[in-house]
Amino acid sequence: MNLVKTEEPAVSEAAVSRHRGILETAAQLICSDGYERTSMNAIAEACQLTKAGLYHHIRSKEHLLSEIMHYGMDIFEEQVLSQVSGITDPVERLETTLDKHVQLVTGGRNKEVTVILHEHDTLTGDARAQINARKKNYVRFLEASFAEAIAQGRIRQVEPKVAAFTFLGMVNWIYKWHRADGEFSPQRIAQEMRRILFGGLVDEVSPPSVESGERKQG
Amino acid sequence: MNLVKTEEPAVSEAAVSRHRGILETAAQLICSDGYERTSMNAIAEACQLTKAGLYHHIRSKEHLLSEIMHYGMDIFEEQVLSQVSGITDPVERLETTLDKHVQLVTGGRNKEVTVILHEHDTLTGDARAQINARKKNYVRFLEASFAEAIAQGRIRQVEPKVAAFTFLGMVNWIYKWHRADGEFSPQRIAQEMRRILFGGLVDEVSPPSVESGERKQG
Repeated sequence: MNLVKTEEPAVSEAAVSRHRGILETAAQLICSDGYERTSMNAIAEACQLTKAGLYHHIRSKEHLLSEIMHYGMDIFEEQVLSQVSGITDPVERLETTLDKHVQLVTGGRNKEVTVILHEHDTLTGDARAQINARKKNYVRFLEASFAEAIAQGRIRQVEPKVAAFTFLGMVNWIYKWHRADGEFSPQRIAQEMRRILFGGLVDEVSPPSVESGERKQG
Repeated sequence: MNLVKTEEPAVSEAAVSRHRGILETAAQLICSDGYERTSMNAIAEACQLTKAGLYHHIRSKEHLLSEIMHYGMDIFEEQVLSQVSGITDPVERLETTLDKHVQLVTGGRNKEVTVILHEHDTLTGDARAQINARKKNYVRFLEASFAEAIAQGRIRQVEPKVAAFTFLGMVNWIYKWHRADGEFSPQRIAQEMRRILFGGLVDEVSPPSVESGERKQG
């Protein structure tokens, strides 16, 4: 499939970093204007390249989108998934995942790269199947962690799959309403969502005079 | 602003229904292919109209999108907001809102019309401001209901705004993963999300031997 790529064996660090810079710049444009409305001309200009120069780095517009998405998944897996998959306790694992995922979508210079993952149904064929497989991997991780927490009696008996998509929905929606200069810091949002999802909203928690040891038996 | 509209005073029921049919057909196309990639030609064809015939009903593509969004908000307000705003108890009000909103985004022939509301930042100027004001009205309703439930000691002390967007995120994300022939019925999804959001996931609820009367004091 790699028909047009030029250099293959020893890609220099500078080239990798240059390539990433192009993906990040393109991601910012696509995030603000949408994929369809972002022209290759506009991307070239923002990267201070001629259009021919851009095509030296990027095969096609759809391939660019696919590359941004894989880069987004790389960042996501590096900053979220690989940080938490070793945590033994399933509730702690899920809470930490929530924290780290919220941090990723609210702040940092890679925000746009990960937001592009929401570009719905734009990729086609193999490129789409590959990205969907990587996304599904995260859904399965969440689902398995919820199932484990239920099996250990740590959380209520809910449908792990609905819980996983509830988690994803609340976190993935954040970019629609959160502003960097808004009233809530990323830390605060993560903390509140943790309390909402894991603490539960209904205040039935603290019965007046039961020893904490007894409460586990319920 | 109404420069092109033809009939004004007595619009027949048939005309209204014809107009809605066009909006619904266009919404289905936009949902499956995206706004930018859906041509007026394709919409005309799906409506069994010539392009000129379509322009008799619709001023422009952007105006069409704006009309679909207002129609979506009409349906949303009729099927969700107006059904629940009279409920006195804030927790019952929020739970019923969750039920009805989930029903709307999972089933029914108007699903596409309401999903179009997620088309991010596509409208511009006044049209965008008008739709945003209607959306904001719902956010405020949720926020106020959460605040009321907190003030009455019915739910935990969380940030009402974060709770409102958590609610919105989990519900608005459903169209991304739910399939009509999938394993979960709309009723089941609503029930599970109600348990997750209002029941809370951590199973600290049922202490073994405390009378239910006592638990309210905590």
